[in-house]
Amino acid sequence: MKRLLVLTFLLTGFVTFADRQPNVIIILADDLGYGDLSCYGHPTIRTPNLDRMAVEGMRFTDFYVAATVCTPSRAALITGRLPIRSGMAGGPQKRVIMRDSKRGLPDTEITIAQALKTEGYATQCIGKWHLGHAPEYLPCHRGFDHWFGLRYSNDMEPNEDIPKNATARLDQKQEWWNPTLFRDDNIIEQPTQLNQLTRRYTEEAIKFIKGSKKKPFFLYFAHTYPHVPLFASDRFKGKSARGLYGDAVEELDWSVGQILETLRKEKLDENTFVFFTSDNGPWLIKGLAGGSAGPLRDGKGSSYEGGMREPGIAWWPNRIRPKLVTHELASSLDLFPTIMKITGTPMPTDRPYDGVDMSPILFDNGKSQRNVMFYYNGNELYAARKGPFKAHFITWPGYAKEKPEKHDPPVLYNVDQDPGEKFDVAALHPDVIADIQREVEKHRAGVVPGTPQY
Amino acid sequence: MKRLLVLTFLLTGFVTFADRQPNVIIILADDLGYGDLSCYGHPTIRTPNLDRMAVEGMRFTDFYVAATVCTPSRAALITGRLPIRSGMAGGPQKRVIMRDSKRGLPDTEITIAQALKTEGYATQCIGKWHLGHAPEYLPCHRGFDHWFGLRYSNDMEPNEDIPKNATARLDQKQEWWNPTLFRDDNIIEQPTQLNQLTRRYTEEAIKFIKGSKKKPFFLYFAHTYPHVPLFASDRFKGKSARGLYGDAVEELDWSVGQILETLRKEKLDENTFVFFTSDNGPWLIKGLAGGSAGPLRDGKGSSYEGGMREPGIAWWPNRIRPKLVTHELASSLDLFPTIMKITGTPMPTDRPYDGVDMSPILFDNGKSQRNVMFYYNGNELYAARKGPFKAHFITWPGYAKEKPEKHDPPVLYNVDQDPGEKFDVAALHPDVIADIQREVEKHRAGVVPGTPQY
Repeated sequence: MKRLLVLTFLLTGFVTFADRQPNVIIILADDLGYGDLSCYGHPTIRTPNLDRMAVEGMRFTDFYVAATVCTPSRAALITGRLPIRSGMAGGPQKRVIMRDSKRGLPDTEITIAQALKTEGYATQCIGKWHLGHAPEYLPCHRGFDHWFGLRYSNDMEPNEDIPKNATARLDQKQEWWNPTLFRDDNIIEQPTQLNQLTRRYTEEAIKFIKGSKKKPFFLYFAHTYPHVPLFASDRFKGKSARGLYGDAVEELDWSVGQILETLRKEKLDENTFVFFTSDNGPWLIKGLAGGSAGPLRDGKGSSYEGGMREPGIAWWPNRIRPKLVTHELASSLDLFPTIMKITGTPMPTDRPYDGVDMSPILFDNGKSQRNVMFYYNGNELYAARKGPFKAHFITWPGYAKEKPEKHDPPVLYNVDQDPGEKFDVAALHPDVIADIQREVEKHRAGVVPGTPQY
Repeated sequence: MKRLLVLTFLLTGFVTFADRQPNVIIILADDLGYGDLSCYGHPTIRTPNLDRMAVEGMRFTDFYVAATVCTPSRAALITGRLPIRSGMAGGPQKRVIMRDSKRGLPDTEITIAQALKTEGYATQCIGKWHLGHAPEYLPCHRGFDHWFGLRYSNDMEPNEDIPKNATARLDQKQEWWNPTLFRDDNIIEQPTQLNQLTRRYTEEAIKFIKGSKKKPFFLYFAHTYPHVPLFASDRFKGKSARGLYGDAVEELDWSVGQILETLRKEKLDENTFVFFTSDNGPWLIKGLAGGSAGPLRDGKGSSYEGGMREPGIAWWPNRIRPKLVTHELASSLDLFPTIMKITGTPMPTDRPYDGVDMSPILFDNGKSQRNVMFYYNGNELYAARKGPFKAHFITWPGYAKEKPEKHDPPVLYNVDQDPGEKFDVAALHPDVIADIQREVEKHRAGVVPGTPQY
């Protein structure tokens, strides 16, 4: 009898596993820097939940995003394609979608949510969108069953007569801002309380997870913080030694803990792939209201490492072996093909993809299928990395008051030996430069720029 | 019968614990930066053994040394007193003991080894000394039963006609250097092979630990690396993605793993307090042969955080609770009183001490008894920290080509909010500056400078 029960249990377990495709959760921070989590070396900010996620899963040291600012970075993550292809790269005039932008992610692009819907997934978007706010561009028109959040950044609906540089202020006031909260296609509040957002997003996410018993699900949880203006709920405000920026990050860390705890309680943890990252580097010109790239150079807006290398943490108990730190090269572009792979969803075959499947890194502690990384700023290729070497053709710290500078021959750094990009080794490695230039030419030949959307 | 056995076992265990004072091991790296270990956020250098030590024990985010360079930092650690008191602070001419220095740590100073010898400890020094190399200043005259190592830094015995800036070269050659290896008071090899040092030090340490069955022991293990010129044994050379600097750090990490593994195997782990740190920040002017202070400003030679804040990892299974990260303020000056406390050795009462007992932090996850930190460069007080605020009275990046700059009023940073020391907040906090100035006056009134020794 006992033996029979065990057998039944094993069979049921097996059937459940085989029957049910894995759930997928992407948690995206906004403007969080490479150096802002305790597990990435921040001396002050306490992030016990993300640290635990890293210890239970895999922490990436060389995880990149595909753009230096918000809109193109998100477009890349959600489609697996470089923003230059979709027309979402932006340019010198508009680097992200602005309030007066009329368009957004073209409907010819396929989002992760759309692809997973073909497999019967329940799909939920929570948080900041910023891929177009005319009605036909909102999340529920791009593959999501439901959405709860802001259409763009929290600094994009200021009230009149607010202080100069209000975004960087550490004595934030709700009355300076007039943000619009959406549920699906509808405005449900304006102004919404900015210090309640992380908590409310998290409650929505937990409700969604708990309610997703019948179908596999995809949750795209794009936090509003630590993008300025910074707010935190009373429970976190004034609690971090790092100040208001730390308060916001510590509340975000709490939120991640709540999500993982819900998965454990609902016994979904062993069938859910969770990935945490940020959209771009820290907004350094915001002073103490901006984050830290740790040992990396520069931040948001720049194609130096600080602008595009991000924390990346993967978690899937009993699938991803715990305690691993990987130095393999990976990108937010790789999430699309990786998710298609682990959910058994066919990749669209009518278009080129810039992402590669990360499964070998995640599940076999193996090698990346990627050995080249391209660093775009708008539609321009600023730099390219192959192996440890990164060639800069154009450099820019990312601030409006400085101009981009062209380099011919390019500046060359060995970012494994010199992650802070201090020591130009171009003179020592003309062969490496030539090799990277060949990779760039090959890449350029395969890129057809899409119509600029904003 | 079973019950009796259990009781006997418990009693024996208890008696052993009560009878035998704990062993103490200090492992000191040379010129290792705050950002050079994986658990402190280095993207490339792999330090699985130190990372594990941190996870099994306690990792400090705010651990300081008492000087910006080698000799005074070591004098402070080994005596618990600021180098200005012992005459070991150095000055603008000689910042450390040089080859032509005749003196060293005065015999009126009491080392940790001397204090523990009064309690019957076996005491062993392994590695670099640099506290005086005239015969009467060598380790065996300062409380150590035995010594195996170099009398000073590995760059202090160059051969003639070596390349300019040979120390910073990554294509090191043994024939450029003529280092002298000592056992006790005797020269046993010259030149000694620099790429074998870490391995041989480690073997000596393991032999000492295994042979210390009859008495409690104190091991002061001061590595030669990653001080330049960098060398690593064949097993590590060329293996780190960080290059030669990473090779040296990864071999040092291996060595730490060997020590902890030996303690486990010999069943000494639960009765041994191990502390790991470095003597000062990374030697940045050495380029890729120097380390990284991570998010902190400047390095070796400077009283900015990068010069004096160091990795600090405490380990004592079943006494120090695992997985703790502490943000409490602590110093290498605190090791002396802490070790006296945990070994039950009386503190000398005939002199002032600058260290405080760290036990409350280590064993109760409690508060530091220290809330002020003084940053000396030579005999001059450059800066002072109280709580999160640090006032700089003099700043200097630590390079000869720049001159120290005086500040009145001082520059003020909130190093909790701004660990990179970028944003001067002096204008906002005159009260804080006044308070720190009072602390400095009180401190100065209690310091009688010793006769300069070099």
